[in-house]
Amino acid sequence: MSAPLSPEWIAADWGTTHLRVFAMEGSRVLAQASSPKGMASLARDEFEGALLELIADWLPVGRKTLVIACGMVGSRQGWVEAPYAAVPCPPLQASAMVEAPVSDPRLSVWIIPGLSQTMPADVMRGEETQIAGFLAGNPGFSGTLCLPGTHSKWVQIERGTVTSFSTFMTGELFALLSKSSVLRHGMADDGWDAAAFSGGVTASLARPDMLAAAFFSLRAEGLLHGLVAASARARLSGLIIGAEIAAVRQDVSGDVTLIGAPALSAHYLAALKLAGLDGRTTAGESLTLAGLGLARRVLTENQKG
Amino acid sequence: MSAPLSPEWIAADWGTTHLRVFAMEGSRVLAQASSPKGMASLARDEFEGALLELIADWLPVGRKTLVIACGMVGSRQGWVEAPYAAVPCPPLQASAMVEAPVSDPRLSVWIIPGLSQTMPADVMRGEETQIAGFLAGNPGFSGTLCLPGTHSKWVQIERGTVTSFSTFMTGELFALLSKSSVLRHGMADDGWDAAAFSGGVTASLARPDMLAAAFFSLRAEGLLHGLVAASARARLSGLIIGAEIAAVRQDVSGDVTLIGAPALSAHYLAALKLAGLDGRTTAGESLTLAGLGLARRVLTENQKG
Repeated sequence: MSAPLSPEWIAADWGTTHLRVFAMEGSRVLAQASSPKGMASLARDEFEGALLELIADWLPVGRKTLVIACGMVGSRQGWVEAPYAAVPCPPLQASAMVEAPVSDPRLSVWIIPGLSQTMPADVMRGEETQIAGFLAGNPGFSGTLCLPGTHSKWVQIERGTVTSFSTFMTGELFALLSKSSVLRHGMADDGWDAAAFSGGVTASLARPDMLAAAFFSLRAEGLLHGLVAASARARLSGLIIGAEIAAVRQDVSGDVTLIGAPALSAHYLAALKLAGLDGRTTAGESLTLAGLGLARRVLTENQKG
Repeated sequence: MSAPLSPEWIAADWGTTHLRVFAMEGSRVLAQASSPKGMASLARDEFEGALLELIADWLPVGRKTLVIACGMVGSRQGWVEAPYAAVPCPPLQASAMVEAPVSDPRLSVWIIPGLSQTMPADVMRGEETQIAGFLAGNPGFSGTLCLPGTHSKWVQIERGTVTSFSTFMTGELFALLSKSSVLRHGMADDGWDAAAFSGGVTASLARPDMLAAAFFSLRAEGLLHGLVAASARARLSGLIIGAEIAAVRQDVSGDVTLIGAPALSAHYLAALKLAGLDGRTTAGESLTLAGLGLARRVLTENQKG
């Protein structure tokens, strides 16, 4: 039998649909675990139990282990609300972190707040921690970040401060249209066609205002010209991502830094190139851990000071 | 007991989800009936039965009664495929109508084909009959028609010929976003806010490319500024309709003639006004009957000739 784990601290990435935890020694991952007990499936008094299910064995008796959590766990429907920090501001401020109420004496849980923007109204929860992780490795960074996903974020940074951001419902629109709209009849569940994707991006870059008509044209292309299902899927993705890039293009100077899953980031890189923009990729998951680690250091120093 | 009905002919508006039939004497409606047996719920050999359920009592023995049908009944998944007529063409051509196979000797069923456009690929089924009905009362018409709905159509007409058209997934996008996306949390099922609608239209007219970001902003407005649910619903509608009008605005000259349900047409009128365009309304349902009546006359003359 191996010795029981006794991590220095615990990192938690707690989103709408999943909870992921990491037993940490400094910035080293000793163990990890996950469950489908995301924010959306839990009542307020169920969060502590959901966390203990995964980490109880990692908690030595007789001292408190610090848990740092980010994501929807800090929303109004979450464990405890961590009110948004308003931009312009750094992505992470120790003074804005909120302690969650716990019963277990071995636990001390702190939640990272999201960011808000007043006009145009916008919010993020979770991405701010990835941004903080990126900035930890790129201090004083100025430029444009893109975090593609269900709700893609485009974020302007000036010397480490988030000055503005914009959320596009890209991934959610793609899922709704490909699975629940009239387009589903001509749409594959998977497969890819890089040329069809590029065609969609190019069409939206030229006429982003035609998006809702370009969607229906996919249906008509299937009926009239036999557009195959995998191509329809890739073209739909290209139309939506192309419209997103068309909308932000004027605000981008220099390279776009992509923070996200490798496959999706590769699609964005191809789309950026069609818009005459350069991009570079980073690893999204490791940045979340880096951001949680930074939050831990800042919080610990703050509490000592 | 009243004398049995013996209509001269029968009009059928047969869409994806509903079948509506009208017992006709010339252009006069003697009786009407409907059922939820739309195209989507029927296998090929079930169409005749679904029709007879509604009209069997209207069919005298010893002669064939002509039934003229329009809509998705003529699609590839329908009773019999009535291949699209390609624009430019008049909305209705007797030679393109297709006879459906029937067993009942009292029936003669003809289906009106839809219209197609090669580039950009587009299709319609059902709307061509409303357009034909409108043109029957406005011979030689040139201008722009708008048929708002689940799949809104913008149609350019030159002296009675449909030269081009464009379909926007307006109603379907609105339903998906308001009922199935993250926006549903802040969205009422009904209610209206005319100022919020106008705000949405104006925002999309100014930045139609920002549509996917403007959607998410509704969520953020609810979280940050307490945007109420009925206002969120109206603003979402305004955003989608505004983007539609922004996209077609450059192709419109003169008034836009709206063919649709009164409440929806009133929203479009308000949106057109914000875009600096004039519109006028017509009654959609009576135009379908007028178009079916025109098809009957043309078909009958064709068969005599």
